[in-house]
Amino acid sequence: MVSVSSGPELLVRNVRPLGGDPVDVLVREGRIAAVGANLGASPSARVEEGDGALLLPGLVEGHTHLDKTMWGLDWYRNDVGPQLIDKIDNERAFREASGHDAGAQSLALARAFLANGTTRLRTHVDVDTQAGLRHLEGVLRTRSALQDVQQIQVVAFPQSGLLGRPGTAELLDRSMAAGADVLGGLDPCAIDGDPVRSLDVLFGIAERHASPIDIHLHEPGAMGAFSLGLILDRAEAHGLQGRVAISHGFCLGEVTQPERDALLARMARLGVVLITSAPASRPVPPLMACRDAGVVVVGGNDGIRDTWTPYGVPDMLERAMLIGLRYNLRRDDELAVALDCVTESGARGCGFADYGLQPGCRADLVLVDAHGVAEAVVARPVRRLVVAGGQVVARDGLMRHQ
Amino acid sequence: MVSVSSGPELLVRNVRPLGGDPVDVLVREGRIAAVGANLGASPSARVEEGDGALLLPGLVEGHTHLDKTMWGLDWYRNDVGPQLIDKIDNERAFREASGHDAGAQSLALARAFLANGTTRLRTHVDVDTQAGLRHLEGVLRTRSALQDVQQIQVVAFPQSGLLGRPGTAELLDRSMAAGADVLGGLDPCAIDGDPVRSLDVLFGIAERHASPIDIHLHEPGAMGAFSLGLILDRAEAHGLQGRVAISHGFCLGEVTQPERDALLARMARLGVVLITSAPASRPVPPLMACRDAGVVVVGGNDGIRDTWTPYGVPDMLERAMLIGLRYNLRRDDELAVALDCVTESGARGCGFADYGLQPGCRADLVLVDAHGVAEAVVARPVRRLVVAGGQVVARDGLMRHQ
Ligand SMILES: [Zn+2]
Ligand SMILES: [Zn+2]
Repeated sequence: MVSVSSGPELLVRNVRPLGGDPVDVLVREGRIAAVGANLGASPSARVEEGDGALLLPGLVEGHTHLDKTMWGLDWYRNDVGPQLIDKIDNERAFREASGHDAGAQSLALARAFLANGTTRLRTHVDVDTQAGLRHLEGVLRTRSALQDVQQIQVVAFPQSGLLGRPGTAELLDRSMAAGADVLGGLDPCAIDGDPVRSLDVLFGIAERHASPIDIHLHEPGAMGAFSLGLILDRAEAHGLQGRVAISHGFCLGEVTQPERDALLARMARLGVVLITSAPASRPVPPLMACRDAGVVVVGGNDGIRDTWTPYGVPDMLERAMLIGLRYNLRRDDELAVALDCVTESGARGCGFADYGLQPGCRADLVLVDAHGVAEAVVARPVRRLVVAGGQVVARDGLMRHQ
Repeated sequence: MVSVSSGPELLVRNVRPLGGDPVDVLVREGRIAAVGANLGASPSARVEEGDGALLLPGLVEGHTHLDKTMWGLDWYRNDVGPQLIDKIDNERAFREASGHDAGAQSLALARAFLANGTTRLRTHVDVDTQAGLRHLEGVLRTRSALQDVQQIQVVAFPQSGLLGRPGTAELLDRSMAAGADVLGGLDPCAIDGDPVRSLDVLFGIAERHASPIDIHLHEPGAMGAFSLGLILDRAEAHGLQGRVAISHGFCLGEVTQPERDALLARMARLGVVLITSAPASRPVPPLMACRDAGVVVVGGNDGIRDTWTPYGVPDMLERAMLIGLRYNLRRDDELAVALDCVTESGARGCGFADYGLQPGCRADLVLVDAHGVAEAVVARPVRRLVVAGGQVVARDGLMRHQ
């Protein structure tokens, strides 16, 4: 549960929800109290003129790594090797040398996300035998600092593998006890080398803490499909319907269509969510086939400006654009699907409650100058106004309190 | 030859060419007169303080369609079908109904490109039996209007096919006579249905006008490789070394590696250039393999905000970023390759003369606040100053004369 401000009413006048007819939105005690034409408000209400702006619900980041980012710091010169393990090892060495401050960095990036209208965010946080819980503690401080205006889900993530470094499982266990929201996993074949034991340990921890699970599954083709099958077996056996997410799931873009469709049908039946950054450089799960099968697809940036990648900006409209480009979504109705991945489906897939533009929802409002949703995705206009938990937090892309 | 302004000297102080050590750049009569530390200038020289900004050469757009754009107009609702022919037919119908003004639209988009530092630009312009030379005439007016500050190459492009509509070849012939710089072609198998005759007609027109050629080749796999082979045969037979460009060339991302390498070797030998937008949603020619084979690779946006696609912004740094994402270029030295596609290689591939940051080059300078080239590509910072043909044309992303 996210706390919301009380204080006076806020009336946002003349906005077009998702491009519909102009309405006013009345906000009271941090929630949407009413949506309609020519709403009245108490004399003390603060009024914001929307001038016919497009109104979007708060944007949702389904997969990032706040703790890794070097956002706002000096440029990091990247000369890291091409393999996954190069990037993992390089990052640990960099941290050892740099004294990287995951608390300060996660706060800087979370605030930048908020300035761009992202009011709900799921972040994976590295837990390993070198850093221990230091990153987790830093990101939990960020979660607390922003709790009135941004809902952050923290995933305890074994970036260096679960089995390879003894003590990692215990650290994940302690992470969940310390307040992480979601248990993270990583490539049970390719990284851990023992998929059955890796997943059994992981699901055992999840069971002890009754926690949802979000597994990074980079493994390609048949290997990934094999691991995914093992994950689905355990989601079913542990009764974790609607509690498991697969991040990336590249294998779903590589196996044969019958194999893919069988996996998607099983995912849909078990309420297993797919979270994707829709990378341009490799096969990806087919967005429309996933949705048609009933799998909720969530968009996310993955890492932003870190030792892994120089790319990324904390802007979910830009991520929606990149999803649109990856899947060649050109029609207006298709671009609405791209936006959906970082709004409604994003919130549903991550389990963010009280989400939307209806009365009763948390008052997370994003105003942009655009004709409609399609233009918002391709043009990524500056966020003219961001309201989060009922508070005006940013204007013209800048945080109100810097 | 592009005309350049005379007028007083311009001294741009304290900039870092491509991230190197700080220098001053002296501009005289539209050209770079000197580059070095603590340069003197005449008392009448205008001085611009760079404050240590990153200095890039003018950016190069290798493939766009200025005449098609609806940039700056009301949102165009896209509900066009998925096939190439759907898009071609829809566009002709739209024009018939809307009275689309290719002259005004091309000028608006070219100026937006310039504000973002694009000082050289190759644009394909539709020539067909419905529009005749109307689009061409409009874009030629834009070319004239901007000639002091932006070098525009106009490609006469048979968007509706060369053979299907009798009279098109004659229109292309008249286009070259009217001042088009480059002769365009399109899918000799998939659109024209008679590749040998299509290419023979095309190369015949090119021979009459001694014009370079730039062929849109969307054809996939074996069909595309077959057409590419026919094109290379004719480039060789007509002695058109260094005068032929292939736009897209998707087939090079689909055929087997031996077949691809044989085609690339032949392209390199004949100086055939590859121009790509590096689309995220389909196979693309392998960038590094092309370069390693000696093929010059040029970046371009393709259409921007038109009836074909809602995407695109007139910003070559964003296109460089999308190239980087498509080819998973993460290291700083790899990101320099992405930039090269829209700077040096772009200019070389299109044949833009007097290009670069050396004395004697046309004074096309772009200043951004960034540590180096890699950051410029991923962050796409606002263009702090754009000098074109020696004139200050834009500041902080806005044209000086609106
Ligand atoms: Zn990740
Ligand atoms: Zn094109």
